[in-house]
Amino acid sequence: EPATTEANLETVGLSGQQAQKLIEAALDGTQGYDITESLTTEVGQRMAGTEAEARARKWAVAKFEEIGLENVRVEPFTIPGWERGIETASIVSPFPQDLVITSLGYSVATPANGIEAEVVYFPELNALQETTQDLTGKIVFISGLMDKAPDGAGYGPAGMKRRIGASEAAKHGAVAVLIRSVGTSSHRFPHTGGMRYTPDVPKIPIAAMSGPDADQMERVFQRGESVTVKMTLTPINTGDRPSGNVIGEIVGTESPEEIVLISGHLDSWDLGTGAIDDGAGIGISAGAAKVIIDSGMKPKRTIRVVAYGAEEIGLLGGFAYRDQHKDNLAKHVMATESDFGAVAPYEIHYNHEAGRGDMQLLADLLNIPLVEKDTSGGPDIGPIKALGVPAMRLQQDGTDYFDLHHTPDDTFDKIDPDEMAKNTAAFAAMAWITANSTSNYRDNKEN
Amino acid sequence: EPATTEANLETVGLSGQQAQKLIEAALDGTQGYDITESLTTEVGQRMAGTEAEARARKWAVAKFEEIGLENVRVEPFTIPGWERGIETASIVSPFPQDLVITSLGYSVATPANGIEAEVVYFPELNALQETTQDLTGKIVFISGLMDKAPDGAGYGPAGMKRRIGASEAAKHGAVAVLIRSVGTSSHRFPHTGGMRYTPDVPKIPIAAMSGPDADQMERVFQRGESVTVKMTLTPINTGDRPSGNVIGEIVGTESPEEIVLISGHLDSWDLGTGAIDDGAGIGISAGAAKVIIDSGMKPKRTIRVVAYGAEEIGLLGGFAYRDQHKDNLAKHVMATESDFGAVAPYEIHYNHEAGRGDMQLLADLLNIPLVEKDTSGGPDIGPIKALGVPAMRLQQDGTDYFDLHHTPDDTFDKIDPDEMAKNTAAFAAMAWITANSTSNYRDNKEN
Ligand SMILES: [Zn+2]
Ligand SMILES: [Zn+2]
Ligand SMILES: [Zn+2]
Ligand SMILES: [Zn+2]
Repeated sequence: EPATTEANLETVGLSGQQAQKLIEAALDGTQGYDITESLTTEVGQRMAGTEAEARARKWAVAKFEEIGLENVRVEPFTIPGWERGIETASIVSPFPQDLVITSLGYSVATPANGIEAEVVYFPELNALQETTQDLTGKIVFISGLMDKAPDGAGYGPAGMKRRIGASEAAKHGAVAVLIRSVGTSSHRFPHTGGMRYTPDVPKIPIAAMSGPDADQMERVFQRGESVTVKMTLTPINTGDRPSGNVIGEIVGTESPEEIVLISGHLDSWDLGTGAIDDGAGIGISAGAAKVIIDSGMKPKRTIRVVAYGAEEIGLLGGFAYRDQHKDNLAKHVMATESDFGAVAPYEIHYNHEAGRGDMQLLADLLNIPLVEKDTSGGPDIGPIKALGVPAMRLQQDGTDYFDLHHTPDDTFDKIDPDEMAKNTAAFAAMAWITANSTSNYRDNKEN
Repeated sequence: EPATTEANLETVGLSGQQAQKLIEAALDGTQGYDITESLTTEVGQRMAGTEAEARARKWAVAKFEEIGLENVRVEPFTIPGWERGIETASIVSPFPQDLVITSLGYSVATPANGIEAEVVYFPELNALQETTQDLTGKIVFISGLMDKAPDGAGYGPAGMKRRIGASEAAKHGAVAVLIRSVGTSSHRFPHTGGMRYTPDVPKIPIAAMSGPDADQMERVFQRGESVTVKMTLTPINTGDRPSGNVIGEIVGTESPEEIVLISGHLDSWDLGTGAIDDGAGIGISAGAAKVIIDSGMKPKRTIRVVAYGAEEIGLLGGFAYRDQHKDNLAKHVMATESDFGAVAPYEIHYNHEAGRGDMQLLADLLNIPLVEKDTSGGPDIGPIKALGVPAMRLQQDGTDYFDLHHTPDDTFDKIDPDEMAKNTAAFAAMAWITANSTSNYRDNKEN
């Protein structure tokens, strides 16, 4: 059934009726799904700054041109590169066995032949932060589970040990850190992701172990014996590397200088093939554009599709876009990003007064609630939203997102084509309605 | 609720009433679960012939003594050792990316710097066997899915490509083989397992790739371009290595020379920690013995618990047991093994006329059907059953067994304590009833 059973098509006006046609075309098609399949198959993983990400940009230029986008171009920028190396760990005593681990992004390396040390266990990051123990020469193990939620609310808190755990442990003299993977899967996959060092604290290596390995470590610690682990990580900071944002447009017929921006990020972590994070977002935003192009209808404002580079290592594409377009941000009328997997939106988040009718129309067409809630619009939208660009979010259901996110298991087979079609429909309708509106979404509340 | 709601305790006799008490004690307890936890935590993986398997034997001797088994001993034997090395593969063209693979047991190595060659795709083993193509210098990729079933019926057919795929490809001149993992999971884990070379055919290396990687390869082949892969495998045949079976007994009070044998296998593959395969079987059989010992009741016949070594690489512990006990097999009145995971039995398989009443009593107590069906009694029982030892099987529900089996994901967290308790109850009741019966389970039909 179409997503619009609740909407009375006689009351939605021309733009709403046209959006409804786009929704139906998307629900009948595989536009977004096919583009994600193409990216994840023909490029695979595409770690920021690598030759694989460069191949992804070439792929995006070719794909954007193929689907009929105009003004297709790469906007290059430079990033600090980091590449994974060897990553092994094993319990040396009391129960010798290997652990499944992965380096966190931007971790420093261990010495080439590893670090072997006694391990000190902390059930949560807080326990480490509050400890008075001297951890000199020790490896710190930080556990702690993550809760599931549709909006991924558990990720922020659970991810703190990943982001700051190394420096928190180093403050107490530790030589390395192992964390329980941030994520909700019980499969034996480690979860990678970015980390940062606190200035003026020694930089020590940090890795994540899979959930089952963390469970195993906890069982070992329950025995009450001293635990020794050997771990070896050999990632390298490669220095400056090229990245870039890929842009394509459907040029508006009446106000071509006004931009509605829909987007995803092109880069991925290197363990999987970046299907749900964020091949799906590329498929959904480019697929939505294809639905509009294939309809033969032309929007009044310009619809711009952006495939951001280097999101995973610090939203670097989002910041580069902000800098490269700073003189033109006032002409960005609305921006959003798809970067929360491939399951259909269950809410619209929007907190402006201006243009509220457009968002209500979209909500009615999609048969999901409009929730007055602040939103960045997506990670790469945050930088331009901070400079006044209006943002909204089609809030995807991320209940199971962190089962796969940033693990080797983030592969194309996990994506449901029906959910992708609903996503593509939602983004097509959103782009169409906002690009054919005369609303100025900037209002006093926001700016 | 106890498993015996269907049994009328007034009709089951003394042995049945005692078995019912054991069932209740097992369902109230964690005997089998705790033993499996201990083995998988304190030893971890225990590949046949390695120092880890030797540690597992020490663990088993200590655990068997701790729970009160008598005559605890190791019966050593020697096996041909094999150890995993580097195992990497990547698509070189047209779409460069890494694949997740693992060597199959007893595969030969590639040259140290790998094999790079064009890949020829076969959707199933049959297609390779029937081909008239010259595969000289090629890598063969054999795909093919496995069906789920409670009795694992899909495993035999799906596993053929693993067992004979290398030699079948070598007959056509191929230089290496990649197969889709045998198994039913959609997670990015490769599935290992034993393989054998056909005499007088060149030995070529063989590895399994995860399901998602096999899906990816199929999508790549759908593009119609020539596909080149580089793969490197460096396993080694280590020569003779020690293994052994660990035995403990509850000595019978009236006919101590008559043996009821319950068992599991102590060794595991090296990717996971061998929790469902077959830490569970060790926990279930030793846990059942503990339930009986803790009851204070003594069986008339001897109950022997066997933890077989080196099952995974060819039932070598089962064959060694057969050879080492060949003069005494006539005194083995019944034998069974738990080696199909940790989910409770849903049927009893037994095809003798003799002793049928005992099996019906067991079935009634467990509230599962008795099915007249031939059974090996379990992989390690096959060798002694072939020499006339009566066998039965508590058929565990293996519907999801091959989601985990022989993968890195075979870890303790996957085991449900309630299912383990049901298994332990079933094995305790089976051992008690057969060890307190005067039935001779040998009958004309079988021997
Ligand atoms: Zn993302
Ligand atoms: Zn991400
Ligand atoms: Zn087994
Ligand atoms: Zn096995």
